[in-house]
Amino acid sequence: MEPTYTLVISCPDRTGIVAKVSNFLAMYGGWITEANHHSDLQANRFFMRHEIRADSLPFSLDEFRTAFAPIAREFEMDWYISDSEIKKRVVLMCSKESHCLVDLLYRWHSGELACDIPCVISNHEDMRSIVEWHGIPYHHVPVNKENKEEAFTQIEALVDQAQADTLVLARYMQILPPNLCQKYTGRVINIHHSFLPSFVGAKPYHQAFVRGVKLIGATCHYVTEELDAGPIIEQDIHRVNHRHTPEDLVRIGKDVEKAVLARGLRWHLQDRIICCGNKTVVFN
Amino acid sequence: MEPTYTLVISCPDRTGIVAKVSNFLAMYGGWITEANHHSDLQANRFFMRHEIRADSLPFSLDEFRTAFAPIAREFEMDWYISDSEIKKRVVLMCSKESHCLVDLLYRWHSGELACDIPCVISNHEDMRSIVEWHGIPYHHVPVNKENKEEAFTQIEALVDQAQADTLVLARYMQILPPNLCQKYTGRVINIHHSFLPSFVGAKPYHQAFVRGVKLIGATCHYVTEELDAGPIIEQDIHRVNHRHTPEDLVRIGKDVEKAVLARGLRWHLQDRIICCGNKTVVFN
Amino acid sequence: MEPTYTLVISCPDRTGIVAKVSNFLAMYGGWITEANHHSDLQANRFFMRHEIRADSLPFSLDEFRTAFAPIAREFEMDWYISDSEIKKRVVLMCSKESHCLVDLLYRWHSGELACDIPCVISNHEDMRSIVEWHGIPYHHVPVNKENKEEAFTQIEALVDQAQADTLVLARYMQILPPNLCQKYTGRVINIHHSFLPSFVGAKPYHQAFVRGVKLIGATCHYVTEELDAGPIIEQDIHRVNHRHTPEDLVRIGKDVEKAVLARGLRWHLQDRIICCGNKTVVFN
Amino acid sequence: MEPTYTLVISCPDRTGIVAKVSNFLAMYGGWITEANHHSDLQANRFFMRHEIRADSLPFSLDEFRTAFAPIAREFEMDWYISDSEIKKRVVLMCSKESHCLVDLLYRWHSGELACDIPCVISNHEDMRSIVEWHGIPYHHVPVNKENKEEAFTQIEALVDQAQADTLVLARYMQILPPNLCQKYTGRVINIHHSFLPSFVGAKPYHQAFVRGVKLIGATCHYVTEELDAGPIIEQDIHRVNHRHTPEDLVRIGKDVEKAVLARGLRWHLQDRIICCGNKTVVFN
Repeated sequence: MEPTYTLVISCPDRTGIVAKVSNFLAMYGGWITEANHHSDLQANRFFMRHEIRADSLPFSLDEFRTAFAPIAREFEMDWYISDSEIKKRVVLMCSKESHCLVDLLYRWHSGELACDIPCVISNHEDMRSIVEWHGIPYHHVPVNKENKEEAFTQIEALVDQAQADTLVLARYMQILPPNLCQKYTGRVINIHHSFLPSFVGAKPYHQAFVRGVKLIGATCHYVTEELDAGPIIEQDIHRVNHRHTPEDLVRIGKDVEKAVLARGLRWHLQDRIICCGNKTVVFN
Repeated sequence: MEPTYTLVISCPDRTGIVAKVSNFLAMYGGWITEANHHSDLQANRFFMRHEIRADSLPFSLDEFRTAFAPIAREFEMDWYISDSEIKKRVVLMCSKESHCLVDLLYRWHSGELACDIPCVISNHEDMRSIVEWHGIPYHHVPVNKENKEEAFTQIEALVDQAQADTLVLARYMQILPPNLCQKYTGRVINIHHSFLPSFVGAKPYHQAFVRGVKLIGATCHYVTEELDAGPIIEQDIHRVNHRHTPEDLVRIGKDVEKAVLARGLRWHLQDRIICCGNKTVVFN
Repeated sequence: MEPTYTLVISCPDRTGIVAKVSNFLAMYGGWITEANHHSDLQANRFFMRHEIRADSLPFSLDEFRTAFAPIAREFEMDWYISDSEIKKRVVLMCSKESHCLVDLLYRWHSGELACDIPCVISNHEDMRSIVEWHGIPYHHVPVNKENKEEAFTQIEALVDQAQADTLVLARYMQILPPNLCQKYTGRVINIHHSFLPSFVGAKPYHQAFVRGVKLIGATCHYVTEELDAGPIIEQDIHRVNHRHTPEDLVRIGKDVEKAVLARGLRWHLQDRIICCGNKTVVFN
Repeated sequence: MEPTYTLVISCPDRTGIVAKVSNFLAMYGGWITEANHHSDLQANRFFMRHEIRADSLPFSLDEFRTAFAPIAREFEMDWYISDSEIKKRVVLMCSKESHCLVDLLYRWHSGELACDIPCVISNHEDMRSIVEWHGIPYHHVPVNKENKEEAFTQIEALVDQAQADTLVLARYMQILPPNLCQKYTGRVINIHHSFLPSFVGAKPYHQAFVRGVKLIGATCHYVTEELDAGPIIEQDIHRVNHRHTPEDLVRIGKDVEKAVLARGLRWHLQDRIICCGNKTVVFN
């Protein structure tokens, strides 16, 4: 893969945005390898993502930022540019359940997820061995009713120390405190084990069993202060029937969760997701 | 297709049920072409469905009923037997939206749905022409806040007169009164335009759009007094994304609704569905 | 829906294309409501599709063509512009099987397919009544071994007379002669009742049954001279199992065929498909 | 999970089979927890699978075999009975690609696959570390053009020594010699990285890319002497489009392969698959 810069823009919709941006890129010889646009007619906002061959531009990232700033101001853009050579730093958080964690570790190990994983944080010891086999530090931070505040202070320190861009709650089973949700807005990814908004809250597979649904699902979303209500990134389902016990739903659901979380994280790492209110634009 | 008898049984679970029933059938030379069993371990109930070549048995339906009654009593069975030569009588009810109605009419016309359709009942005139093209009587029964009681009395009379077994609410958009829900328990099939239990009630596609889901669905279920809460027969979904407007969700959803309702009705006509509490066993 | 112009471009890939085109549009105030780009790195070709609000441009289609011609020449573009107010003219061709034809007629009638259907051509009389109910002329052109050449000459005349842009073989079951394939390159859409390239040729569901596959599919593709080998537009599948007879595969397959053909035709009508060699770029 | 016996029967179809078998079970108090039947009308064969609570029968497996033998003879049954307490012994074979192997190891480790894995055999060293982390012996048996016969003699010895019931080719990339195919008929499971019968042979994803398909698939099948032509156990697909490179198809395909192989192996371990000619009956 050639190194690329990824330019991601969100701004009020009007004519001339694409012309201005593509002129800027063309003027400097920028070779666009992928371009995506979207106009949200309800929100009257425009979204844009370009992948540009880094070696086609005469800029470092900082120089690009300086050169592009006047355009960004003119169009009131929320924007950033990232460099495929600088990997995102992703802290994984897990509890006792292994399926999502091990799946992400495998994908990272096999080169499918282009990120660094500075550490894994868990409220249990169970996953230490497999994490350490992958050469990744493992931090055990127990969380209970009494120590919640200290525990999350410690977690915040670990995340800061790890210089993490992104937190992934790989079935972490603890609710992040509001201050962390705010601090990492748009950078905490959770996997919920139901097809949201069905079965918000605890034990969704058992809720699904009782309701007798014929499909079970999983939802990958950004975490916000309101539980299970953040912007949805990806969802998928699997068919079930009357023969399936609650345990079967859990087992089948795990495969859906793994797939949905891995896709969501991959798109996040590639800067393919832009939030628009409580919804996402996903350029995949 | 050879004529078949279909024997459908639900009873408390215990050993010896299959032996007793299959002995009975074997003793009279019954040639079983399809057999399904299910034990619901939570409810401790047993479910069974046999298709038997009618010409392999020395019985009329009534004679079968008499001969089988002692076994049914012994095992406290809820049971019935049906004859593939006697088609179910299905009244379709619709409003202004055509997609589910026309889809069912087509399937019936092309021989895919083995039932009689004695009439279509609608609170609007819109669908008269296409229904009458199919040679089916069309009854226009307007429903509004003032005339609700009379309207449903008239509908009940039409259904009685049609000697209907089954009502299909093909996007009928009116809520059946409790007395009709009770009178036709397990025989009124509705299509809900969301993946229940998400988005109960009105305008589910608009609710789905606002929530930013990545899949939209439809649910075919038996109607009970509680709105959108009856036993689920079948569900399916289709993938959507940020480019889809509410109108797109409606359009895409229509295809899901058609498919899900047609499958649900087909299984109902073939006596493949048994209710167990608020859930269904579907032998498909 | 606001009237839109759709600008579709395919050209050798190089830097500056997007800048030039979007500048051109911006200069004249063009309001882009949807934009798609794709670089085929293997073929070194660039593909681009814009929807532009017609009332935002000071051009008629012809004026646009004149104004844009220099850019098109400079970048060696294959290109066209279409007007959403000028509907494509689609001739449907069918045989005895009704499912795809009736599905397309329904979608057209309900406003889901934005095209004109000047006529239906069939080698059988079976579909006349339902076609005429829709107010569409029906031409019966029998085809057999002896009259093939004349029959297709007659068909060509009917298509010419209908001023058709597009032919849809809605399970037509006859092979178009090479001269027609060439004359309407990229404008004849076929539905093949298998997941190509599996089961090329006749009776694919029976081939699938014999092979014991667990999924059956359908493929919508542009017709070329080589049978079942043209550019694939869309495919889908449905799950089957050991209980399904060949007749079941046919029945289930019909639903897949309908869905796949309808999607393919919809994208064609919206100028969302560009051929690249024997493959398609589909901006959907 | 209560210990269960699983009774699997295949025999010529006739009346009275179910009666005889269920009588036998009922006579001894057998508590059936799951029962499945299938009549293959083309092959005129009957298939049957029962799960019976082991503690409800007064038999050891050997005593069951003796007691049931007369019925089996009378109906010319191919049959066996297995005990959920006696796990199948599965040898995994892999090459350099890790995805299927690691997925199966994870599922085994987390208790999702009820089998023993006495060893992994590979023609490369790459997977040794992760296999040994799971506490499973790893045998490196290089295979090349010159040593093929010896290599497979050595492999056969390792398999014999491991007292294996089942071989899983988890992307092994070598063709088993005919004598091994015969020796382990119905017990060697392969994952083919295409939707068979499309793209038989080498590099199916590249074949798929060239053909421009819109779905890619994977097929789990029993190995027979004819390459990629054995009985299909399970298949699945994933949607792709023009943006996907051959590398993307490979990456996406890996997830399909893992899922399909895991399902196929699970059903095999649970004695849910019966071969009928070159097809499978899968009671899932």
